[in-house]
Amino acid sequence: MRAAELIARKRNGDALDPDDIRALIAGYARGEVPDYQMSALAMAVYFRGLEPAELSAWTDAMLRSGDVLDLSHLSGAKVDKHSTGGVGDKISLPLAPLVAACGLRVPMVSGRGLGHTGGTLDKLESIPGFRTDLSVERFVAQVADDDLRLGLAGQTEEIAPADKRLYALRDVTATVESIPLIASSIMSKKLAEGIDGLVLDVKVGSGAFMKTEADARRLAETMVEIGRRAGCATVALLTDMSRPLGRMVGNALEVRESIDILRGEGPADVRALTLRLAAEMLMLGGLARGVAEDLARSTLDGGAALKRFARVIEAQGGDPAVLEDPDRLAKAPHVVDFVAPRAGHVAGMHTARVGLAAMCLGAGRARTDDVIDPAVGLEICATVGDRVEKGQPLARIHHAGRGLDDCRAHLAAAWTFADAPVAPRPLVIDRVG
Amino acid sequence: MRAAELIARKRNGDALDPDDIRALIAGYARGEVPDYQMSALAMAVYFRGLEPAELSAWTDAMLRSGDVLDLSHLSGAKVDKHSTGGVGDKISLPLAPLVAACGLRVPMVSGRGLGHTGGTLDKLESIPGFRTDLSVERFVAQVADDDLRLGLAGQTEEIAPADKRLYALRDVTATVESIPLIASSIMSKKLAEGIDGLVLDVKVGSGAFMKTEADARRLAETMVEIGRRAGCATVALLTDMSRPLGRMVGNALEVRESIDILRGEGPADVRALTLRLAAEMLMLGGLARGVAEDLARSTLDGGAALKRFARVIEAQGGDPAVLEDPDRLAKAPHVVDFVAPRAGHVAGMHTARVGLAAMCLGAGRARTDDVIDPAVGLEICATVGDRVEKGQPLARIHHAGRGLDDCRAHLAAAWTFADAPVAPRPLVIDRVG
Repeated sequence: MRAAELIARKRNGDALDPDDIRALIAGYARGEVPDYQMSALAMAVYFRGLEPAELSAWTDAMLRSGDVLDLSHLSGAKVDKHSTGGVGDKISLPLAPLVAACGLRVPMVSGRGLGHTGGTLDKLESIPGFRTDLSVERFVAQVADDDLRLGLAGQTEEIAPADKRLYALRDVTATVESIPLIASSIMSKKLAEGIDGLVLDVKVGSGAFMKTEADARRLAETMVEIGRRAGCATVALLTDMSRPLGRMVGNALEVRESIDILRGEGPADVRALTLRLAAEMLMLGGLARGVAEDLARSTLDGGAALKRFARVIEAQGGDPAVLEDPDRLAKAPHVVDFVAPRAGHVAGMHTARVGLAAMCLGAGRARTDDVIDPAVGLEICATVGDRVEKGQPLARIHHAGRGLDDCRAHLAAAWTFADAPVAPRPLVIDRVG
Repeated sequence: MRAAELIARKRNGDALDPDDIRALIAGYARGEVPDYQMSALAMAVYFRGLEPAELSAWTDAMLRSGDVLDLSHLSGAKVDKHSTGGVGDKISLPLAPLVAACGLRVPMVSGRGLGHTGGTLDKLESIPGFRTDLSVERFVAQVADDDLRLGLAGQTEEIAPADKRLYALRDVTATVESIPLIASSIMSKKLAEGIDGLVLDVKVGSGAFMKTEADARRLAETMVEIGRRAGCATVALLTDMSRPLGRMVGNALEVRESIDILRGEGPADVRALTLRLAAEMLMLGGLARGVAEDLARSTLDGGAALKRFARVIEAQGGDPAVLEDPDRLAKAPHVVDFVAPRAGHVAGMHTARVGLAAMCLGAGRARTDDVIDPAVGLEICATVGDRVEKGQPLARIHHAGRGLDDCRAHLAAAWTFADAPVAPRPLVIDRVG
């Protein structure tokens, strides 16, 4: 196996032998294949793609570059959910305890926010005391504990380290935007969790990485195929990210909204998507086929998911009293309105701008080493389809003095208006799998 | 200028700003832009190409990464020739002294052989004592000396060092086969010679890097455009490399054939191409417009080119007596025939195989650190269009015991035969410029 020959074959549009791919990735993981060959290969893949057999081998080699959790000794199905990222997407917070309360085991490894998107770990860490840096042993013990059945942790250095290196390389070589490479990067990390089933929430629209339904569908189909070939039951929903999900954008603010959902309250879109994703997970886990959404709804409305979240917060060092008294969460010192410049119907939102507006306040990161302020963020008062009058608040800015001008500049470009009523897109656009 | 953004723009098919290209290449030359970004960019260029303005900036930045000869103080035109490489292409040896004898100055920087192609430096060094490692001062002094007007040297470390690094990187990242990158690599080295005019001999066919006329034409047009934009009058001939040039392949053997040409003898194709290229150089240099080939022919046939070569050999430490007595050149200890397996007309030649056959004997290099045996090589006895009988020699193998089996294996695949007569392609296919 000569790396340059494999690059040439991919460049010419030929499929690579799966064994050659395994050898190449293993060589990269050992540091024998240098970055300059991997970046050239990644660019060739950007132009030529990867066929299903190539992609399976690529993903498998990436996940085998590190530790793979073995949860096979635990009874019952192990199921996780992954979102491709958006603005206001706090679904994991109510979803994970809900599904665990329904009886599945959920070994959930999450990420941090960057750019316009938030991250589940950052949101969880806005709960006072909450630790996401669990050891593998502790994480597995929580998933094994029948009173918890849930661990909420960050990716360790041991999970798919070659993927981590390749991702950093892609970031500086303009090879991030490749659907097979995105798909294999996500799936290599998820399959390393030792799960039996995976529900993918593939976001589509102005706040998502996939701006078009066609791209999102291709990503969804690619990941579902990787999962299928790896023996992990995988389903993907294409869901709308042409507007923020729910009303809150910002870490403690999103925890508040999640608590509302766990109390059977909160915005209809967040509740609906939580129940739908829970139902998909329950079906993959072999529970409640046909009546899965009923089981999810009754578990949520009965308070079992809220109680489960309390136990998990406590297990991970956090203060469960926030669930009863959300005012224990960090609050920004200032709240100012951002008002509509005209009357009309909200026709569309540049949703990534909303995410960047929140980032400017300190709710997110422009660079990976930026420090987050859990208290700040945005409360969205008018979304696609809403009628507003001139001067009526479009958003409330929860800030601490930082980045307010930049935030306003992004928000000024975030809403577009029409004179006639506008119907928002359906929340769940399609299901793949 | 962020390198990753420029890579993304090229990847998306957008043209880069020439100033951004200059900054990027300068950064690469200083070691600030890492190899992994340049290899990704090279792959993006492979797929997207470079527009003329981009290519000019790229080439200019490459040549400015090192020393640029300033020959502007020398009277008269400074003109060079470059061949894209083939099998049996010894044209530089008779051509350079011929053009210098006609009155132009020829600062000729040449390369070494690799793979199936030979190199002018290796051929010159088969003349006993001949040195090609001239200092810049000595090289310029020879070009300035009106009795010589010619220097024959190798590329120093100071000429286009960024191109040298990029070429090595392209070699291991499957990005060699990009016409704009090939064109800029050639032109950055040639334009660093401080020349006023350049004639390019772009080879086409089974022994050339460009296998098709369309590719060769695109390369020729690209280089001519780079030359034009750099203020260097540039002309390209597309010439046939579907068969070896002349009869001899191998270093001392090719020097012998070159001496024959300088004596007004030798194979018709080598003589014709020498005269045609000389005429193009003379016209670029402003000499003998319209009657340039007459001037070249009379200079060659009058013996002035041979005398000039004797002086240059002496100036560069070689033994000029080889011109009178070619038996002073190295001779292989063994000569064996390679005979025709059938009677027929030679319909075609896999010319690269002929080059590889000579390489196996030690006439060329499989790797850059291989050592050449000047004595060995091939004498081609039957070429495209020739009628042969079964058992008649197709080639004579001049060998020293090394690589004979591999040589024969390549030769066995080199000739194809037809029952009907075959007309060879014309030697000069077209002229671009």
